[in-house]
Amino acid sequence: MTMSDLDVARQLADAARAVILPHFRNANTTADNKLHDGFDPVTIADRAAEEAMRSVLGDLRPEDGILGEEFAPKSGTSGRTWVLDPIDGTRGFISGTPTWGVLIALSDGDGPMLGIVDQPYIGERFEGTRDHAQVVGPHGTRPLVTRRTDSLADAILFTTFPEVGTEADRAGFERVAREVKLTRYGMDCYAYALLAAGTVDLVIEAGLNAYDIQAPIAVIEAAGGIVTNWEGDPVHNGGRALAAANPQIHAAALALLKAG
Amino acid sequence: MTMSDLDVARQLADAARAVILPHFRNANTTADNKLHDGFDPVTIADRAAEEAMRSVLGDLRPEDGILGEEFAPKSGTSGRTWVLDPIDGTRGFISGTPTWGVLIALSDGDGPMLGIVDQPYIGERFEGTRDHAQVVGPHGTRPLVTRRTDSLADAILFTTFPEVGTEADRAGFERVAREVKLTRYGMDCYAYALLAAGTVDLVIEAGLNAYDIQAPIAVIEAAGGIVTNWEGDPVHNGGRALAAANPQIHAAALALLKAG
Repeated sequence: MTMSDLDVARQLADAARAVILPHFRNANTTADNKLHDGFDPVTIADRAAEEAMRSVLGDLRPEDGILGEEFAPKSGTSGRTWVLDPIDGTRGFISGTPTWGVLIALSDGDGPMLGIVDQPYIGERFEGTRDHAQVVGPHGTRPLVTRRTDSLADAILFTTFPEVGTEADRAGFERVAREVKLTRYGMDCYAYALLAAGTVDLVIEAGLNAYDIQAPIAVIEAAGGIVTNWEGDPVHNGGRALAAANPQIHAAALALLKAG
Repeated sequence: MTMSDLDVARQLADAARAVILPHFRNANTTADNKLHDGFDPVTIADRAAEEAMRSVLGDLRPEDGILGEEFAPKSGTSGRTWVLDPIDGTRGFISGTPTWGVLIALSDGDGPMLGIVDQPYIGERFEGTRDHAQVVGPHGTRPLVTRRTDSLADAILFTTFPEVGTEADRAGFERVAREVKLTRYGMDCYAYALLAAGTVDLVIEAGLNAYDIQAPIAVIEAAGGIVTNWEGDPVHNGGRALAAANPQIHAAALALLKAG
């Protein structure tokens, strides 16, 4: 019997966990700088995990394409693409915070149909498909259901860096931040997982790549949320993301982001 | 045989874990506002955990005093005081982030001699005494040893909120932030635990109470770090804290904090 796409995705996450965890909080882990003009470290673990996942896909899904952060894209023949970020949140990773994650998505021409956000250190896996949304972790297995908050005055907003992106990006974010109950920082991809888990209402970020956002889109939408760019259009190819727990809070935040 | 102070502290942490965990990420948890003019939620779990810890101390250390966040101080006859914050980082708690912690310290007139920072959801416990510094968690049991980073240009700095405190506090923080390799936010008390674990070099915060900082002081100093206020004096009664991995990086940051 053919293995389901979800089970393939779980095998990818298992493979990445096994490779990455020994490097986390290991003083011997090296961090290169990928960019000469900025801070964007990549660890040995990042590359080794993507290689491990590509190897699993070579065995189980040779007909599918692969888009990963660390290596060149691989074309497929199926019209489907696995979108991989072995360590999203590398700055969190080198700081020791359990806020980074392994991001795995399966996409067709219309965007992600399946996603996993995995946090290996906590041992927590957030999964979403078109008919399945669950988290497995310290609390056991629970369904993922987003919140019904419909007013910004009651909302909890997350982003990773106070700078957000460009000056204009920051100004847009701050128009929303001024209206919400609570703004928090520093969670990397884990903020999207919390939105799916129903403890956060909004995540707003800029400068994303496809592999940063496709897994969060699939998990959040499976849990009842909505993810677009700052114009309200699909964001699975990257850019500026607005992730919201429900259409009402999405519309309220989108209006402020567009007001600039 | 009398139970050691460390074993008493572990029993306190165990009692708090058992009470708090069922409330974490539970949509039914209520959050009151303690202050009329600010956002400082306190959950059912916060009070119940402090009651559970006070009950353990009533049995095992009736002669010691208690200073806790949630209830009135209890005087002792021993000259020793247990300093308790059942949930440090309540905003993180209600947001679902695993960055809050149970803070337990044992103090004599000279400051904390023992501390535990416990993160129940991850199942991670950071301990420090005058001859013991370890973390028990997903990686098993490991010694806690701070980093040797001696230059701000190589340092990782944490604080919880970009605002830090007053305008002057923020300006002081930013003088340090401009010089470091990486500044991150949002970790609550977990940032101090990471400093003890050797993945972070500096934590700078303002507006702390004694129960916010005594457990971090004991854990960090046991691991080789140093914690003072922004004048370089003891901070175990609260105020503005500068926690550093070693005396060199402490001196470098302190000079900038004092330069305002």
